[in-house]
Amino acid sequence: MAEATRKLTMADIHAAAERLKNWGRFGAADEIGTLNYTTPADIVAAARLVQKGKVMSLALAFDHRGPQGAKSSYGSIGRFNPIHLMLRTGTDAYSGVLDHRKIRGADDIIIMPMQCGTQWDGLGHIFYGDHMWNGYDCRTVTSAGAQKCGIEQTRDRMVGRGVLFDIPRMLGEKYLGDGFAVTCDMLDRAERHFGVTVKRGDFLLVRTGQIEAKLEAKNWDGYPGGDAPGLAFETLDWLHKKEVAAIATDTWGVEVRPNETDEAAQPWHWISIPIMGLTVGEIFDMSELARDCAEDKRYEFMFVAPALPVTGAVGSPVNPLAIK
Amino acid sequence: MAEATRKLTMADIHAAAERLKNWGRFGAADEIGTLNYTTPADIVAAARLVQKGKVMSLALAFDHRGPQGAKSSYGSIGRFNPIHLMLRTGTDAYSGVLDHRKIRGADDIIIMPMQCGTQWDGLGHIFYGDHMWNGYDCRTVTSAGAQKCGIEQTRDRMVGRGVLFDIPRMLGEKYLGDGFAVTCDMLDRAERHFGVTVKRGDFLLVRTGQIEAKLEAKNWDGYPGGDAPGLAFETLDWLHKKEVAAIATDTWGVEVRPNETDEAAQPWHWISIPIMGLTVGEIFDMSELARDCAEDKRYEFMFVAPALPVTGAVGSPVNPLAIK
Amino acid sequence: MAEATRKLTMADIHAAAERLKNWGRFGAADEIGTLNYTTPADIVAAARLVQKGKVMSLALAFDHRGPQGAKSSYGSIGRFNPIHLMLRTGTDAYSGVLDHRKIRGADDIIIMPMQCGTQWDGLGHIFYGDHMWNGYDCRTVTSAGAQKCGIEQTRDRMVGRGVLFDIPRMLGEKYLGDGFAVTCDMLDRAERHFGVTVKRGDFLLVRTGQIEAKLEAKNWDGYPGGDAPGLAFETLDWLHKKEVAAIATDTWGVEVRPNETDEAAQPWHWISIPIMGLTVGEIFDMSELARDCAEDKRYEFMFVAPALPVTGAVGSPVNPLAIK
Amino acid sequence: MAEATRKLTMADIHAAAERLKNWGRFGAADEIGTLNYTTPADIVAAARLVQKGKVMSLALAFDHRGPQGAKSSYGSIGRFNPIHLMLRTGTDAYSGVLDHRKIRGADDIIIMPMQCGTQWDGLGHIFYGDHMWNGYDCRTVTSAGAQKCGIEQTRDRMVGRGVLFDIPRMLGEKYLGDGFAVTCDMLDRAERHFGVTVKRGDFLLVRTGQIEAKLEAKNWDGYPGGDAPGLAFETLDWLHKKEVAAIATDTWGVEVRPNETDEAAQPWHWISIPIMGLTVGEIFDMSELARDCAEDKRYEFMFVAPALPVTGAVGSPVNPLAIK
Repeated sequence: MAEATRKLTMADIHAAAERLKNWGRFGAADEIGTLNYTTPADIVAAARLVQKGKVMSLALAFDHRGPQGAKSSYGSIGRFNPIHLMLRTGTDAYSGVLDHRKIRGADDIIIMPMQCGTQWDGLGHIFYGDHMWNGYDCRTVTSAGAQKCGIEQTRDRMVGRGVLFDIPRMLGEKYLGDGFAVTCDMLDRAERHFGVTVKRGDFLLVRTGQIEAKLEAKNWDGYPGGDAPGLAFETLDWLHKKEVAAIATDTWGVEVRPNETDEAAQPWHWISIPIMGLTVGEIFDMSELARDCAEDKRYEFMFVAPALPVTGAVGSPVNPLAIK
Repeated sequence: MAEATRKLTMADIHAAAERLKNWGRFGAADEIGTLNYTTPADIVAAARLVQKGKVMSLALAFDHRGPQGAKSSYGSIGRFNPIHLMLRTGTDAYSGVLDHRKIRGADDIIIMPMQCGTQWDGLGHIFYGDHMWNGYDCRTVTSAGAQKCGIEQTRDRMVGRGVLFDIPRMLGEKYLGDGFAVTCDMLDRAERHFGVTVKRGDFLLVRTGQIEAKLEAKNWDGYPGGDAPGLAFETLDWLHKKEVAAIATDTWGVEVRPNETDEAAQPWHWISIPIMGLTVGEIFDMSELARDCAEDKRYEFMFVAPALPVTGAVGSPVNPLAIK
Repeated sequence: MAEATRKLTMADIHAAAERLKNWGRFGAADEIGTLNYTTPADIVAAARLVQKGKVMSLALAFDHRGPQGAKSSYGSIGRFNPIHLMLRTGTDAYSGVLDHRKIRGADDIIIMPMQCGTQWDGLGHIFYGDHMWNGYDCRTVTSAGAQKCGIEQTRDRMVGRGVLFDIPRMLGEKYLGDGFAVTCDMLDRAERHFGVTVKRGDFLLVRTGQIEAKLEAKNWDGYPGGDAPGLAFETLDWLHKKEVAAIATDTWGVEVRPNETDEAAQPWHWISIPIMGLTVGEIFDMSELARDCAEDKRYEFMFVAPALPVTGAVGSPVNPLAIK
Repeated sequence: MAEATRKLTMADIHAAAERLKNWGRFGAADEIGTLNYTTPADIVAAARLVQKGKVMSLALAFDHRGPQGAKSSYGSIGRFNPIHLMLRTGTDAYSGVLDHRKIRGADDIIIMPMQCGTQWDGLGHIFYGDHMWNGYDCRTVTSAGAQKCGIEQTRDRMVGRGVLFDIPRMLGEKYLGDGFAVTCDMLDRAERHFGVTVKRGDFLLVRTGQIEAKLEAKNWDGYPGGDAPGLAFETLDWLHKKEVAAIATDTWGVEVRPNETDEAAQPWHWISIPIMGLTVGEIFDMSELARDCAEDKRYEFMFVAPALPVTGAVGSPVNPLAIK
């Protein structure tokens, strides 16, 4: 397998782009891509999966202990952990300096990259040549933000059936190793193993266990941009055929690293976001969900993960919820 | 009514604090207050309300056109509209300057007060004397954030039945005027009018229409801290009796302004958050939801509004979803 | 005069670009342009102007009361007033929450556009077509900052003789009106009037009085990007001939507004920065200096205005000092 | 010596506070402390030291390669390296997306702790008990900034004679080792060695060489808050007697680390800033200046280091200039 993945070339990437291109599929003015797959009926059905009233958050805490800034072979792209600051505090209150306002309160502020933690990649996040999703000119994403495909377009879309594929559990491992590629065969096997068939409009969550490995080590070194388990390039075809609404993993960048080629960085991203219009989730902490699914043997659930509708954003921090 | 509300005194506030105090009710270590009211059974029942698969966002767009910075009689407390900046852009991509990375992408960053737009107030947001919710010392909210009752404690809690009380519609008005106080009588009447009885663990949304009034005027002047329609102080008792999980309105600060007293600013807040442990939502845009409820005559729905789990935050921006 | 200034065309601008181009003049690798004009001998001579030991700051306070955000006919370019926040406070100290550190202290942080207040425009600030100063490709200024002509290149350069031309005082006015163009004739006359001849390597400060007019009105409306007194386009030739090191005014954008053409915005900037390599100062508060010069009749002084060497910055906030 | 320094007790600190207290010395309303020592005559004399027209910057570059975030035994106090972001870029210009404005330009923004790099500590930076400089209540430094002793008070004060004490050069070392304490004896010896007597109103720069050691190692680990060479506690008396205007070093925190006591952190700071009213500079890069002084044997120079007048700030980034 490893040998096969090494052979990926730019020609393969371009062929995939031709083969998997969804431009125009949802109309010339579409800005949300595969999120269109989820229908109202899918949402009603997803809600029916709520049977024990348990809510699980898939978000890592947003704070200075996050993964950004850890050592990595990948050159910095300017991401940093959230900086949380106070505008007024309880110590101000205690000191009496707020009393002229006749109310004692605290306010706060955050400075954070949209991609610093548990996040959705929006469709303005990756370009293919000079184009972005649906063929829009990449110059519509300027210093003033994304004039097309901003994350705000998804404000009422991140609801549907979630499916968890807990790959290490299927393989009898605690977590997958760096460089481990999740292939189409494994996804097929996961359907049988977990007793759930992925269908059109689903939100597919693929667990590798890397996030727990780093949390247990109390050290994020290697996580942001370093080697990692992840999806093989070939899974693009699988996801295209299945017509999933979105996909997320518990890694920094979904796809296997080292990448399957040296000619392109993150080749899976070249296709998934700009060509297929696939919304991608990263740094989803699936540990609690995985334990719960192993316990009740139900790997499907209602999934609600609303992006913050920041106008023109190419991604969003998110607190994704799995509800069973 | 107006006459009565003018009479509120510090003695009334202190009496309410004694009468409505929930400290210890959920255990000495509790940090989420009335969110405890919602049970798993409530969540299952809420999911059953999803019948047409329609998702509605209650979030205002997070951008420089938001309400902060508008003129107001209320002195600035340092809030500003979100500042959205780019770390890499499509114009960088087009210019070829990213190609050494072998991938063309955009990243972004946000700087924003947690209270700048559609938001949850956490239980560290308001103090009563030197104390906060559950009797914690207000000095646990320092410049380093809230060591108690941080919004991250709610990460898996903002799910349940939502109920909309569309007060202007009930009264045959387009929106309520500034200074209009929503009383207990009106809340009782709303239950009958909309055919839904508020029960323990519900998320109650009270619409005043002010947000639409400002949006239609294309001018936020007066919205942040100015005069507004809102809840009367007496509704604290109603909410206490009903044991709601949380309450939200479409105004800057929930309660009626001018306030019912000159001795305290935002007297309703003095009690709701630190004394009752009530999570409060503000600047919820209920316009689409209100239209939908008027159409299908169903004023209850599944409500999912996960806060971003920012460690130590006293509030959170949120994209609240009503799902029917 | 007003009539004449209206006639400026793109052809005029292009002709000026040819006529005034300094590219290559200071070497192919130069990144600081006309700052090269100031010699060590000029600096020694400037120091000799210090005769009474008086230091005057030309900086506006950096705070939320600054000019950004005021009403303007000029569309927003994203500048905002400084946001100053605390990392630790005296109220934290008083509350005892810092004592585990065995020291009580306060720290702070600032968020500010480099162009929000009293500022130097660096040579990466304006482009002429696809080029910047010295012929560098404008694509060297990316989302990652300026790889050429960053303000850090000037770290030891902003020292020399300063000359104040107090134009309203020369004309017997309190301040110049909006749209008033300072011409070459006026600059010549100022040399005679104030008894100082501008020479190679000088830092020329031209006062219009607009900043005092706004401060007196306690209202910045119209200041950022609105109509203003300022330099006529023709002064580019005068400055070129004089070989000044840098020029600064007390306005938002140096040149007269409305501009002398509708075909280009800020036509004087098209030439000064990218073509001549002229460093430009804006929002310099010359009020105290002007009073002092009127009193002692000396319009020359030692000028020290070091930029913050922020790597890759296209400008810098500055506290310019005039020392007499 | 090392043995002696270990003996410092809280009683010593309190005794020093009594002995060295300058409160009231410059008037009850004073907010700048020892900066008052520098007179106009001192400034005139300092300017006379400019004899070769050479300007040297003592600032470290402000960028992501700065010392913050490096490993340290000192717990994080929330400082981080400057974050420099663009509001418009040359790639935007090249892409044509700015042309509707009829001008092509770049703007930028910075997010930085005031104490992240080369910096002045203002008099609101450290408290002694519940008080700050001149006896002001420490509660005047709130989340809204310093209402007393803000750095803006110094806007026209950081000009005078600079004196460099290059301690490692005096001792024939390249740089001082961690834990090396610079004593009063050494300061006396330095006066003789370098042929310059420190006098009232001087700006004293003490070089340890630590900054070059870290730069050469291309690794800041240990610099922010770690062990370091620096001033002994006893030097407070020397500086008090000499009546210097300000002092700066090339280290993170001026004083020797490990500190001379375990009972207080940074005991020298307890006295210098709040008790003496001494402005303190840190992270000054004196390498170029030291080479120049060694060459021309002149250890005095004109010193100009204007703080950015950020209202209410307790410190300021600075580009200090030594002019000879």
